[in-house]
Amino acid sequence: MHTFAVSGLPEVDAGDDLAALVSERADLTDGDIVCVASTVVSKAEGRTAALDDFPAGPRAREIAGHLADVTGEEKDPRFAQAVLEESTEVVMEAPFLLTEATCGHVGVNAGIDRSNTGGDDLLLLPERPSESAERIRAGLDADVGVVVTDTSGRPFRHGQRGVALGWAGLPASRDWRGETDRDGHELEVTVEAVVDELAAAANLVSGEGDGGTPVVVVRDFEFGDHAGSENLFREVSGDFVRQALRGWEFDAGH
Amino acid sequence: MHTFAVSGLPEVDAGDDLAALVSERADLTDGDIVCVASTVVSKAEGRTAALDDFPAGPRAREIAGHLADVTGEEKDPRFAQAVLEESTEVVMEAPFLLTEATCGHVGVNAGIDRSNTGGDDLLLLPERPSESAERIRAGLDADVGVVVTDTSGRPFRHGQRGVALGWAGLPASRDWRGETDRDGHELEVTVEAVVDELAAAANLVSGEGDGGTPVVVVRDFEFGDHAGSENLFREVSGDFVRQALRGWEFDAGH
Repeated sequence: MHTFAVSGLPEVDAGDDLAALVSERADLTDGDIVCVASTVVSKAEGRTAALDDFPAGPRAREIAGHLADVTGEEKDPRFAQAVLEESTEVVMEAPFLLTEATCGHVGVNAGIDRSNTGGDDLLLLPERPSESAERIRAGLDADVGVVVTDTSGRPFRHGQRGVALGWAGLPASRDWRGETDRDGHELEVTVEAVVDELAAAANLVSGEGDGGTPVVVVRDFEFGDHAGSENLFREVSGDFVRQALRGWEFDAGH
Repeated sequence: MHTFAVSGLPEVDAGDDLAALVSERADLTDGDIVCVASTVVSKAEGRTAALDDFPAGPRAREIAGHLADVTGEEKDPRFAQAVLEESTEVVMEAPFLLTEATCGHVGVNAGIDRSNTGGDDLLLLPERPSESAERIRAGLDADVGVVVTDTSGRPFRHGQRGVALGWAGLPASRDWRGETDRDGHELEVTVEAVVDELAAAANLVSGEGDGGTPVVVVRDFEFGDHAGSENLFREVSGDFVRQALRGWEFDAGH
């Protein structure tokens, strides 16, 4: 499996045709997986906004006040308002604002980026990342998979890693259930979140910041003869950690 | 970056010299990252055990009873005892047993594997995976990094992905703090858990089960000019999800 960045991409602006920009710079082959950072997808889709676009309602002011109390730093209630408008549920309010973003991804601040926004205040996540992936895929000149990626923190482990927000042309995961180990026992490991692992591999070569390359190609990845699933984001009913977070109150004295 | 499996490894038994087995089959180059599945590390280190080695104490019987009540399936209290002995803290008791394993990794059943154990009942995690990684590294014939990997589920997202349990010859993560984006703003993304992303990339090519290849080489990965950190596992004091899970009681009526 070979993982390489597409170099020479220009700054991406609203309305740009990402597929064309990539096709001009990468000699794609059928079966390649093209991993595209959500930041450039959002920019191409014009998902920039100003804080003033989000006049804060009472819930946003309450959250901003709570965050300020807990962290000791002023929080802009307009930013909390933007997060609420980009989310379907608040999972945790403090000491950071963890929500389910409209696309299903649970992340801090609904994935809204305040850096790397080209002069605007906010960069929102793509509205429907799997549809974005499908559009990019349709415009590329080979039969490839596309993964729209982000980076995200996680419980229990420090640091961020690449994750998938949307995908097209391949399933989200592959299913090893019913397969056996070398001793003939059925495997306990069951479903492998392939698109997240592809996003992680891409993040190892893409870098961040002003040297960053937002498009990475994974070549010669073999999905193999497995059932696939489109299911990446857990339902609350099967997510016990999320159930535990509901109603939990951060106590600064912990 | 090129990721490829080391093929032709035999079944690994207690006392086997993993470094020698890999060296004979892979033409390693300085800077390679050798990702080794914890299963073969455990086998080489003789970390197999029988359920009878873990006579259940009162806490294990209580946990097994709780799990049986919640899931409707009989649970072996000896298995709960094995998990307790391999853990430093129970994070969540039901509907599955989530603990901090001795090495710091938070996972289900302390990572104890009941498949793929070569006839024994249980395969325990390596006792000190970073020391295992260092030992393997010292025995290889190039100046490489070594990552001892496992697969693990996670909150919010379905499926498992590769994660690191131990590492040697490279830091756990790289630090982008203080670096700027293309517009000159300081990055919000800060610390990248490189060893977890390497484990994820390796898992894409290693597979599971009887066709699985437990050793994968990542070549031409550029760590770059960044500060590194050895810190992969969160302290409870900075892990708000883990704090929320403490004292949380699963309610089957949810």
